[in-house]
Amino acid sequence: MKFTAAELAKVLKGTVEGDPNATVTSFSKIETGKAGQLCFFANPKYEQYVYTTRAGILLVNKDFAAKQAVTPTLIRVDNAYAAIAQLLKYVSDQKKSFRRHRGLRSSVACSARLGKKVYVGDFTRIGRHCRIGDYTKIYENVYIGEGTTIGSRCILYPGVRIYPGMVIGDNVILHANSVIGSDGFGNVPQSDGSWEKIEHLGKVIIGNNVEIGACTTIDRAEMEATVIGNGVKIDNLCQIAHNVQIGDNTVMAAQCGIAGSTKIGKNCILAGQVGIVGHITLADNTTVCAQAGVIGNVRKPGQVIFGSPAIDRQLYLKSYARFKQAGEDK
Amino acid sequence: MKFTAAELAKVLKGTVEGDPNATVTSFSKIETGKAGQLCFFANPKYEQYVYTTRAGILLVNKDFAAKQAVTPTLIRVDNAYAAIAQLLKYVSDQKKSFRRHRGLRSSVACSARLGKKVYVGDFTRIGRHCRIGDYTKIYENVYIGEGTTIGSRCILYPGVRIYPGMVIGDNVILHANSVIGSDGFGNVPQSDGSWEKIEHLGKVIIGNNVEIGACTTIDRAEMEATVIGNGVKIDNLCQIAHNVQIGDNTVMAAQCGIAGSTKIGKNCILAGQVGIVGHITLADNTTVCAQAGVIGNVRKPGQVIFGSPAIDRQLYLKSYARFKQAGEDK
Amino acid sequence: MKFTAAELAKVLKGTVEGDPNATVTSFSKIETGKAGQLCFFANPKYEQYVYTTRAGILLVNKDFAAKQAVTPTLIRVDNAYAAIAQLLKYVSDQKKSFRRHRGLRSSVACSARLGKKVYVGDFTRIGRHCRIGDYTKIYENVYIGEGTTIGSRCILYPGVRIYPGMVIGDNVILHANSVIGSDGFGNVPQSDGSWEKIEHLGKVIIGNNVEIGACTTIDRAEMEATVIGNGVKIDNLCQIAHNVQIGDNTVMAAQCGIAGSTKIGKNCILAGQVGIVGHITLADNTTVCAQAGVIGNVRKPGQVIFGSPAIDRQLYLKSYARFKQAGEDK
Repeated sequence: MKFTAAELAKVLKGTVEGDPNATVTSFSKIETGKAGQLCFFANPKYEQYVYTTRAGILLVNKDFAAKQAVTPTLIRVDNAYAAIAQLLKYVSDQKKSFRRHRGLRSSVACSARLGKKVYVGDFTRIGRHCRIGDYTKIYENVYIGEGTTIGSRCILYPGVRIYPGMVIGDNVILHANSVIGSDGFGNVPQSDGSWEKIEHLGKVIIGNNVEIGACTTIDRAEMEATVIGNGVKIDNLCQIAHNVQIGDNTVMAAQCGIAGSTKIGKNCILAGQVGIVGHITLADNTTVCAQAGVIGNVRKPGQVIFGSPAIDRQLYLKSYARFKQAGEDK
Repeated sequence: MKFTAAELAKVLKGTVEGDPNATVTSFSKIETGKAGQLCFFANPKYEQYVYTTRAGILLVNKDFAAKQAVTPTLIRVDNAYAAIAQLLKYVSDQKKSFRRHRGLRSSVACSARLGKKVYVGDFTRIGRHCRIGDYTKIYENVYIGEGTTIGSRCILYPGVRIYPGMVIGDNVILHANSVIGSDGFGNVPQSDGSWEKIEHLGKVIIGNNVEIGACTTIDRAEMEATVIGNGVKIDNLCQIAHNVQIGDNTVMAAQCGIAGSTKIGKNCILAGQVGIVGHITLADNTTVCAQAGVIGNVRKPGQVIFGSPAIDRQLYLKSYARFKQAGEDK
Repeated sequence: MKFTAAELAKVLKGTVEGDPNATVTSFSKIETGKAGQLCFFANPKYEQYVYTTRAGILLVNKDFAAKQAVTPTLIRVDNAYAAIAQLLKYVSDQKKSFRRHRGLRSSVACSARLGKKVYVGDFTRIGRHCRIGDYTKIYENVYIGEGTTIGSRCILYPGVRIYPGMVIGDNVILHANSVIGSDGFGNVPQSDGSWEKIEHLGKVIIGNNVEIGACTTIDRAEMEATVIGNGVKIDNLCQIAHNVQIGDNTVMAAQCGIAGSTKIGKNCILAGQVGIVGHITLADNTTVCAQAGVIGNVRKPGQVIFGSPAIDRQLYLKSYARFKQAGEDK
């Protein structure tokens, strides 16, 4: 795809300085920008590159004052850093196409109801009585179990597995090989030392505007529902156990694990590899630092916790400094 | 599906108090029960809901004495809590159907031998010389490499990947996107700093009554076999490395990792995100707390360990209390 | 497959002592060797088994002097332990066959260009404008997005998912259900508490001789590329975030997570379940112990670090000894 400086300036509500017909086909960091690329200058420590880059277009803050001659066409915007996300979105939207497609080698049950311009890739199975909303794109090699409902404008990447009877909202992105609705891990100890499986008949309910990472697994509830709130963003390789509830707009980095029946509040931030035990509650706006292990309720909103078991972050860092000091002592 | 109070009372060996024809179609917690639902009352702190619930059927302990009028039909059983698992199993069994099915779009090698009433979904590949036992259900999008043997009454959910030559027992459940038999991670350092792969020709042998979680990976042995004992239950996103042996009835929560050649005893419990180094042995009945890192043999059966490196749980908690205290001191 | 002592001795540059026509079909540890198997004797503590084993062929060091009668045919080699990897490689190579194959139920775009003797399994989708090198084997149920380039002699196991536009070198092994090119986890906080997704248009570039484990996920960069150097070996269930760069010959055990934009040097070793925060640099030859959490730059090459946050390994172990001691004190 090709973009002119004039077109991009319009999208970004900026002004062109130089050739409005300058054309770019890709993006680059300013250090490595080549002809035909667009670069960004936002961090002052990279200013030297402004004067040497061979990039075709350079995005700068509107108050940028060049100290030497500048070769690329400039686009001046309010905030060059913030404009990056805007630009990526614009280009991404240009690449998207909504078109009706049924892979010749797909398998869609007769009783499934598909909305307008739904894309179904080859080797994808859509079970009986499923309902798929308008403009949803279901890539190749996906499995959607019977009776599942999926909203509109969703994207299901290859290898997504949805067990029967799940409920997924609008604008949801499920990345490759993620699994929605696997059985919760529940086993009753028997007198002979063996374990009897507790069958799981509940659902997973996913709200709107949710993104689920690659190879992330979300288990179905025992009877009712595991609930992922609106606007939740979950990274790759996370585990959400049965009956968990995650509040709106909570974000979770890769490899976190939430054990059964725990309730995470709204607007929480979980860094990578966090573990949270079952049957507890985290207040809204809790921040959990990377690798922390939370083993009790967090009742006061807005806390920042660290360590395993997790305690106040400042306290953990102080304690850890003492811990380290003890090892240094002769 | 619909169930009457009379039918369920029979299954649970309980007695009906009220209308034996009261009908329910789903389950709910007592706090949220609606008409047409069955609820449970086991925990005294929820007693208030017994008198306000709109549920159609309420399961209670046989000695329950109501203090006010109760609307739903009651089923009295020995232990309402224990009855839940029994009931879920009953409903789940009703939903199961054993029927012969070959997806029109499946790919089954001529030399594969399939037992009675085996279900093979679309887009599933079963390789040459595989043997699949009676009543086993292989969902859509599964891959079974050549020469693999799978027992009877197994369930392989969509996206399961089995490398060639594996051996799987009876009544085994493999959840979506789990991988059985990937190469062990073995590399020999070379003089130029690069690594040469050690080829892996061994197997994975999985016993009877085993459940493997979604996106869990079990590597094949170098020459002989990685062995998962009978009755072992492994949750989602766990990693079992080459040559590992796991004793009967050991359970493992999500995101645990067991490094190469380690032997885990029988009836062990590993909580979530546990890591165990290679080439060690854990005695029977060992309990490893969440996020613990085990770096040495655990020889005495029945220990409970915590921390990284893992030590006695009580000791870890005391040490951690001191650690925290040190940070609080001025 | 069958192998004679004479054939194997030739491969291993060893000498036969006994029947050169002795034949084996599989391998075993010396403790459990049976007729028709080949065993190894490298570790002196297993010498007793040399005199009792029923194995058909026994591989020994060339200077081995038997103290009793030995039944199996011996193959004497310079280093019996090192010969194992060589032998496994030989057998593995015999099993490999390079043959052109297009699964009748595969879906290959007309514009995709496939090299010589490429194998494409059933239910595999290869998108438009992909280029696949000679002798590459793409198993069943794989998805390769459009515009992706894959080198020669690669192996893509079932369930591999490659997003559009990725670049993969020669001799690369991608294990089952690994995901290459999923969107980086980037979200911009909005004033109402919600998050806006940052679109990702960059690539993943994987060098030559790389191995990626089962269910491992590698995210695409925001604009440029996530880069995996030559000779890198990554185990199962690892997460490599957007814009990460991993130097040549670095190895990473299972369940490690590297956060966004971090640069890992060459020849580093990461043990299992390590976590590394974003935007930092690890010097060449750094060793990170299991479960460590690295939260700052590691500038000096060759360090060994442990703990969360990670510090010098010796220091961590000393500190931990004091930590444990504090818990033991009355």
